[in-house]
Amino acid sequence: MDAKTYAQQALDKVGTVGQVYWVACGGSVIDLYPAHCLVEQHSPSMESGIYTAAEFTALPPARLGEHSVVVTCSHSGGTRETVEACQLAAERGATVLAMTNNAGSRIDNGQWPCWIYQWEDATPQLEKPAGFTIVFAAELMRLQDGYQGEEALVRGIGQLDGIIAAAKPRVEAELGPRFVELCQSHDFLYILGSGPTFSQTYGFAICSLMEMQWQNCSYINSAEYFHGPFECTEEGVFYFLQKTGGATRHIDERAEDFLKTHTGDLMVLDSLDYGMDAVDADVRTYLDPIFFYEMNVSLRGVRGKAFDHSPEYRRYMGKVEY
Amino acid sequence: MDAKTYAQQALDKVGTVGQVYWVACGGSVIDLYPAHCLVEQHSPSMESGIYTAAEFTALPPARLGEHSVVVTCSHSGGTRETVEACQLAAERGATVLAMTNNAGSRIDNGQWPCWIYQWEDATPQLEKPAGFTIVFAAELMRLQDGYQGEEALVRGIGQLDGIIAAAKPRVEAELGPRFVELCQSHDFLYILGSGPTFSQTYGFAICSLMEMQWQNCSYINSAEYFHGPFECTEEGVFYFLQKTGGATRHIDERAEDFLKTHTGDLMVLDSLDYGMDAVDADVRTYLDPIFFYEMNVSLRGVRGKAFDHSPEYRRYMGKVEY
Repeated sequence: MDAKTYAQQALDKVGTVGQVYWVACGGSVIDLYPAHCLVEQHSPSMESGIYTAAEFTALPPARLGEHSVVVTCSHSGGTRETVEACQLAAERGATVLAMTNNAGSRIDNGQWPCWIYQWEDATPQLEKPAGFTIVFAAELMRLQDGYQGEEALVRGIGQLDGIIAAAKPRVEAELGPRFVELCQSHDFLYILGSGPTFSQTYGFAICSLMEMQWQNCSYINSAEYFHGPFECTEEGVFYFLQKTGGATRHIDERAEDFLKTHTGDLMVLDSLDYGMDAVDADVRTYLDPIFFYEMNVSLRGVRGKAFDHSPEYRRYMGKVEY
Repeated sequence: MDAKTYAQQALDKVGTVGQVYWVACGGSVIDLYPAHCLVEQHSPSMESGIYTAAEFTALPPARLGEHSVVVTCSHSGGTRETVEACQLAAERGATVLAMTNNAGSRIDNGQWPCWIYQWEDATPQLEKPAGFTIVFAAELMRLQDGYQGEEALVRGIGQLDGIIAAAKPRVEAELGPRFVELCQSHDFLYILGSGPTFSQTYGFAICSLMEMQWQNCSYINSAEYFHGPFECTEEGVFYFLQKTGGATRHIDERAEDFLKTHTGDLMVLDSLDYGMDAVDADVRTYLDPIFFYEMNVSLRGVRGKAFDHSPEYRRYMGKVEY
């Protein structure tokens, strides 16, 4: 079943959607952020909220109820916090849509619809959670609000596969060696980004680097950089800026201008230099995060090879009790 | 004029409040987070959203309009992004309430009500932005929703002054020396926290440490710790956990249990050990952030003395062009 059909099904059940809540943990909640931003910024009738699952369950929004659609994702299907969040949402009368890569897992238990996705290198972006939820959100808004941006979004997501395939070898060759060198000469880095892409700024930090490379780092919203964090900037401090081609580009540029003149250890990945300029400017804001996710994968792969640390390797996750 | 009168005034103007948006930058947006959480988790009728100001202006929520109350704060009164956000909100027909420490500044320009606050050591928490906005939010909900928690909140905020005064010298003496020692022996640390207190986890990172101490660090939501960041944990990595006494305490405890057995360089500040146990458990969730803010001030002060780096000193902010 595709995203549009799930949206129609949810709307049929709820009647009028008052709230869309996006709930998951780690990499999975990151993937839901562009769809959250899309509803937040385009729906005149629906509130949108995004939560890490344990906080959603501990402190649920008061409006969670029969007019709420709760979209969740657990890649493994066994994320305890996310399953508990689904249960709470269902108890409150909300309409739940879960997603997982693992059919028959704890989250795919028949209590709510569960979309099973593939997660292969060749899986089109439309069939992965970030692309799927953008279309789901756009279709909900088309049906309820008469939203007219859906076609451009679907077209843009369709372009991503080719753009990403062309960008990966270029980013690996053009940025990879310098990224490795900077990781070798620094114990720590700051990653900057803004707007919907900030989710992948956070994702590069907590998933690609902390989890998969044991690389200490921090993540800063470019819009907050001048409100504290920039006092740390000096020669010898390593910054990596994800420069969006979307609506917050001027915010990234302001940070870049300062960084360029205050540290030699700056690396910039500008999505417009790697094919995202071909995507309609109106929807680029919401699709840049998907582009940056794939570049994060490329850069951690290059780093992993140079450091002989496979991004697949874990010492705790799924191995010890916690 | 007090917070309750501002709430009455806003409601008189708006009729029915559909949205409350909290908008500021850096330390100021951090102070608005508890009030945001309060509305989010207790109002059956009002949506609540919180934004760093430049993103609010670049990508405003679609529902920003005549039924919106927009609360902003600029400590200096000159924060360009925050003034622009106020202007956008006013243009969209929203009711704006600004706050500043600086009467007659750019944000206090007569275009919208502006509450001028004091910011002295002796200023009661009720008269500072975090306490003020909690009461403002509670009163909005009392008037519109019949919310009954306001008294307990006001009583709790009243208790904070005494609790904080007693806790400061204890935290400085009991945790200060170890914090200094750990900062001396590490170039970098992770700060953990959860729930409304996560705002002060972020605040300790970007304001107290990055801005005021040029101390590199990162901030992690305890609820996300096991979804990536914990793979970095090992002997020699420095973690500081802000352990809340509120509704997400079990989330912090789970992180603490793992950290205790996987690094020797863990420091825990438990609000219940420093007086917050005297505050009604129902409201502690929203008042712990104020407690932690003041302990952040104490710890940066102790660090500043030991490193001969006054928390007042800046090299860029307000000194160079950016």
